[in-house]
Amino acid sequence: MSTELTIPQTGSEVRRLIREGSFNQPTSGVAPHHVQANVAILPKDVAFEFLLFCQRNPKPCPVVEVIEAGEVEAALTAPGSDIRTDVPLYRVYKNGELVDEPRTLESHWRDDLVTFLLGCSFSFEHALMANGIDLPYYGTERNVPMFITDIETAKSGDFSGPMVVSHRWIPQDKVVRAVQATSRFPDTHGAPIHIGDPSKIGISDITKPDFGAVWEQGNDDEVPVFWACGVTPQSVAMASKPELMITHSPGHMFVTDLKDEDLAVL
Amino acid sequence: MSTELTIPQTGSEVRRLIREGSFNQPTSGVAPHHVQANVAILPKDVAFEFLLFCQRNPKPCPVVEVIEAGEVEAALTAPGSDIRTDVPLYRVYKNGELVDEPRTLESHWRDDLVTFLLGCSFSFEHALMANGIDLPYYGTERNVPMFITDIETAKSGDFSGPMVVSHRWIPQDKVVRAVQATSRFPDTHGAPIHIGDPSKIGISDITKPDFGAVWEQGNDDEVPVFWACGVTPQSVAMASKPELMITHSPGHMFVTDLKDEDLAVL
Repeated sequence: MSTELTIPQTGSEVRRLIREGSFNQPTSGVAPHHVQANVAILPKDVAFEFLLFCQRNPKPCPVVEVIEAGEVEAALTAPGSDIRTDVPLYRVYKNGELVDEPRTLESHWRDDLVTFLLGCSFSFEHALMANGIDLPYYGTERNVPMFITDIETAKSGDFSGPMVVSHRWIPQDKVVRAVQATSRFPDTHGAPIHIGDPSKIGISDITKPDFGAVWEQGNDDEVPVFWACGVTPQSVAMASKPELMITHSPGHMFVTDLKDEDLAVL
Repeated sequence: MSTELTIPQTGSEVRRLIREGSFNQPTSGVAPHHVQANVAILPKDVAFEFLLFCQRNPKPCPVVEVIEAGEVEAALTAPGSDIRTDVPLYRVYKNGELVDEPRTLESHWRDDLVTFLLGCSFSFEHALMANGIDLPYYGTERNVPMFITDIETAKSGDFSGPMVVSHRWIPQDKVVRAVQATSRFPDTHGAPIHIGDPSKIGISDITKPDFGAVWEQGNDDEVPVFWACGVTPQSVAMASKPELMITHSPGHMFVTDLKDEDLAVL
């Protein structure tokens, strides 16, 4: 955050500042307790298969909202928004290759594009911290460590591939609480998919994440716990090399008007 | 159930008997604790809009599995199944008009049909009964009372319309428990959508359900509680008058291999 900028407190405030060009940083820590979303934009001809991929893999791919072709507003979760301007930084891929990293999508937009807003772990991280679990990377420039596992997702059309997980060290006496706290949020990845030995899910070296920064174990009482990660749908979509795909740039999320608690099932 | 028939205990057993022609009755009470599903079959050209309708309205329209065009097997929840033969009784609608009620779909099947299996309240009813809540219609030929409300669903394409709810009388001292027990099952309608005064959701006469049989209040300590109902997606799809739509006949569900507890989030 630039020092002269007050931290925006709501989703609509964040989006307005981004649209005006006066906020162009990662969104971690802004609009506290508002749901932030991963963005995946694809042509309509693959939209059914991608939505079905998400339905079949709800833990890595929880759908918060879909903006139909011809529309640009997330009418249900962010009324008044415009997906072409309200994300701080985008990535544009053609046939799987990164071709641009623009501040707006005005020169890339097409009327056949469908936008998928997918839940992200920011929501349940608040719940973990509220339960006394320390997340050292939180609110810093560092990212959570992420690993490609040997757990196959359920295929749909051309979309298939391994699940990506995020990794957190959880004190032994907080593991049960971590399961409970995140189970309440099935729309933001929900309960962990694995607790303990990383090799059981195909992770050979916990100190070498595939994405994000390594998180050193603090002491022997900490247990590795793994949650399904929103990088999965992006990596799966990318692997299918769609003619055009647009995503947010890592850490630069779409901020909705929903509160984290709106997504809790209990 | 015919008296000479042992009640089948698993989904695959039920489906085998149906396919052989030796089971042709409602499925209430068979394969106890296995997930049963509402069936909606539509042409591929409206499949994205219908799947999106379900995503936007997860309480009335929880998607258990989608069978893609060209496929007939629910590979994830009922391996070895064939949707054309494994439901005891179907209904076939053309342009919104009932034209046939066949035992198999062999004469109606087309390669462009997409099958949606949607969660039904049987799963959470077990949870209610396990918590000491009596459901007088359960295991009888009677159906739960259902009402059309004034709650609008979130539109997708041509799919829109009011939410249908099921109604149950819950003893005052069990209302909290009923909320807790059903919240665990977001994929089978989840928590109630309303507790108390029926007129608040557009129901003018609790003794005149739009579907199903009336359930008389037992005593003044019973509170009316309403859950989103799987009739909603069928009635919404029907109202759009698709060129072809196939459903299960009421009470004659598709029985999967999933157990109710497989769908619990906590």
